[in-house]
Amino acid sequence: MATPSETNGTNPLRLGIVLFPGFEALDAFGPLEVFNTLSLTHNVTQAILATTLDPVSTKAPGFPNSIEQRIVPTHTFANAPPLDILLVPGGLGTRGDSTEVQTAIAFIRDAFPGLQYLMTVCTGSGLAARAGVLDGLRATTNKRAWADTTALRPDVQWVARARWVVDGKAWTSSGVSAGIDVALAWVEEVLGSEVARNVMRRMEYTRHTDAAVDPFAELYGLA
Amino acid sequence: MATPSETNGTNPLRLGIVLFPGFEALDAFGPLEVFNTLSLTHNVTQAILATTLDPVSTKAPGFPNSIEQRIVPTHTFANAPPLDILLVPGGLGTRGDSTEVQTAIAFIRDAFPGLQYLMTVCTGSGLAARAGVLDGLRATTNKRAWADTTALRPDVQWVARARWVVDGKAWTSSGVSAGIDVALAWVEEVLGSEVARNVMRRMEYTRHTDAAVDPFAELYGLA
Repeated sequence: MATPSETNGTNPLRLGIVLFPGFEALDAFGPLEVFNTLSLTHNVTQAILATTLDPVSTKAPGFPNSIEQRIVPTHTFANAPPLDILLVPGGLGTRGDSTEVQTAIAFIRDAFPGLQYLMTVCTGSGLAARAGVLDGLRATTNKRAWADTTALRPDVQWVARARWVVDGKAWTSSGVSAGIDVALAWVEEVLGSEVARNVMRRMEYTRHTDAAVDPFAELYGLA
Repeated sequence: MATPSETNGTNPLRLGIVLFPGFEALDAFGPLEVFNTLSLTHNVTQAILATTLDPVSTKAPGFPNSIEQRIVPTHTFANAPPLDILLVPGGLGTRGDSTEVQTAIAFIRDAFPGLQYLMTVCTGSGLAARAGVLDGLRATTNKRAWADTTALRPDVQWVARARWVVDGKAWTSSGVSAGIDVALAWVEEVLGSEVARNVMRRMEYTRHTDAAVDPFAELYGLA
């Protein structure tokens, strides 16, 4: 990946995002807002990855009357470009064993060795866990779906009280809006605190800066 | 619009969202996450409105190397269904006088009398202001773009220090992430505090509950 000083130059940060039917909208668009804003000042490329190039819906499986938005992929998993960082959102669509879920898990497994960073939001860490790439690592996930998600893979060292957790190349975050915080923490770590502050200010967002502060762990009885 | 007790029944809350090239991703998907979550338990319909049915890009005008996501509309402005609440995001795409911007402004002007609520995020209030529907009302907008946006329409009573402002049917909010807070405040006001709390907890989001607390007004020298 580009170093901080290089990202204004010719070496881009190559971002990929995994989409599947029933992904959670803000899991994706919280971090994407951070990377969109970063791309105004830094050299970033992006691949929106899915099983096919058909638009991917946020529609929650099991809720036929729920509303949805549909996003257009740029690449199929089979034609993914080289990536430095891979973003994996969660959502009700992570459950089960549809072709799309299986394909996403297989892609995460295959891509992981070549990544510099894996970033998951919410139950996106469940997909990464099922891919086996979090085995032996500390990681967190959505607190409301804690029992179901952590049961998917006991080989992961699940951390209940955390807004986000960094272990090796894995940056895993808690539910939905925590994706914004992990993305800003990543920007701070990799590109520096001034860049993170500028992105945060453009978003008029008050960051959670302490990864260990997590009121939702307590709320859901996990403290 | 459906009353709180009716939204589990047959009368839906009819949501519309205005899209145009260069809309800010989180301006749209912050509030949409709130409404998506609400639609798991309440009767909500949604129209994603644009000039044509082609996917609409978030790509920032003037930043040719910035990354983008593309969203699929469900209706053109010309074929919009009746709406109770209209969501207007901001972004660099609100500037200028492209056909898409002019069409969006005309739609806001025409739709406003039939709405129960207008909700704007960031410089989305600039589009509503240019449509004339905020004249005489108190309203706010993005703090970084304050001078440019407020100059668009002096007939609006612009409020500098505010996370969001409610005046009549107009719910206007500050920059980008403030859209999440105004949407949750709206849910609390219209559907009750327990519904708002449930949505917030599913999002693992710590709400800004005081509309008058706005650190970004001070940051940008507007306090």
